[in-house]
Amino acid sequence: MDDDALLIDRQPLPAGVPDRLAAQLRFLAEADKLKTILRASPLAAADRRENDAEHSWHLALMVVLLAEYAEEPIDVGHTIRLVVVHDLVEIYAGDSPVFVPGAADDQQEREIAAAERLFGLLPPDQAASMRALWDEFEAGVTPEARFGKAMDRLEPMLLNWLNGGGTWGMPGASEATVRAREAGVVAASTTLGAVTSLLVDEGLRRGWIRP
Amino acid sequence: MDDDALLIDRQPLPAGVPDRLAAQLRFLAEADKLKTILRASPLAAADRRENDAEHSWHLALMVVLLAEYAEEPIDVGHTIRLVVVHDLVEIYAGDSPVFVPGAADDQQEREIAAAERLFGLLPPDQAASMRALWDEFEAGVTPEARFGKAMDRLEPMLLNWLNGGGTWGMPGASEATVRAREAGVVAASTTLGAVTSLLVDEGLRRGWIRP
Repeated sequence: MDDDALLIDRQPLPAGVPDRLAAQLRFLAEADKLKTILRASPLAAADRRENDAEHSWHLALMVVLLAEYAEEPIDVGHTIRLVVVHDLVEIYAGDSPVFVPGAADDQQEREIAAAERLFGLLPPDQAASMRALWDEFEAGVTPEARFGKAMDRLEPMLLNWLNGGGTWGMPGASEATVRAREAGVVAASTTLGAVTSLLVDEGLRRGWIRP
Repeated sequence: MDDDALLIDRQPLPAGVPDRLAAQLRFLAEADKLKTILRASPLAAADRRENDAEHSWHLALMVVLLAEYAEEPIDVGHTIRLVVVHDLVEIYAGDSPVFVPGAADDQQEREIAAAERLFGLLPPDQAASMRALWDEFEAGVTPEARFGKAMDRLEPMLLNWLNGGGTWGMPGASEATVRAREAGVVAASTTLGAVTSLLVDEGLRRGWIRP
């Protein structure tokens, strides 16, 4: 597949679709590519790596069920929007595995270019609103973004736990790098932070994480 | 994998996790199985079938971007919750492909049993709220459920379009069965319904759908 080709170019929409809706459908077709972007994390339910689309879905479900633990009150619907949108730029920028040294070096630059290209497919008002959601998540300053980011840290920890190590066993992972991820959960929720610490403590004890 | 075994049984949570949160994490671990439930629909971005988790994510994104076309005002955050939750019971009940005659025969019975088993993992208040979301989506009576169901019809139509046929080419598919799916979009949105009709008209003209 030509990396520059839009998926919709394979089967252009028929004549008669209103311009605004055509732009939205071109974007939604292109979004299918998120299902092919693989993360480092292994699934628990199958012997393969997780993709960004199913990961984003899992975060949305976690927000629905764990919102009660947010340290500050959050708008649940808005938090779900943030996690649904947060990885879209990886369609063009790729995943930047946290335990691979150097993988994040030019990540911000690549992701900003990807955001401009991808959200630019939408009508201008929605390009702006999607970019605002992505920027809010990345900045991690609002209670909703902080909680969304905590889910983004906790979910792979749960998968690692279920796999008896998972990405914790990667060459770039160690107690220090794993604790840095744990901090993102602690920042959003005392209760979820404490349980994340328990998982890391026990992972260290079992040798799943190098000291 | 033993069909009756919970994923969390593979690596039980360490001592010290509060009971309520432990129940929620057991459920969220089990939810990983949705990533292994394959639908009939082919992806556009890769040569494989779509799974329920990435499908649910795609519907959530569609709700965010297409809500403006809902015939009646909808609560977007609530509609996203409905689509995030709508396929969870398929973890135990499996997918029931719409174009496979007989696949839906005992679907309701299987799905109700699955809902009791799956949502029963949660604390009682959340078991009830998740069941209420699933029941609301299934009934399709509220504006939010009607719009969520429309997305559930439109998304595979878009994938079929991008694939030049997709599941429209299955032995059980014909104009009548495809038009029945189209009706679910028309019921929720005049504009989206009109475009869906265009795709089906053109699919018939190109021979992707049997008359």
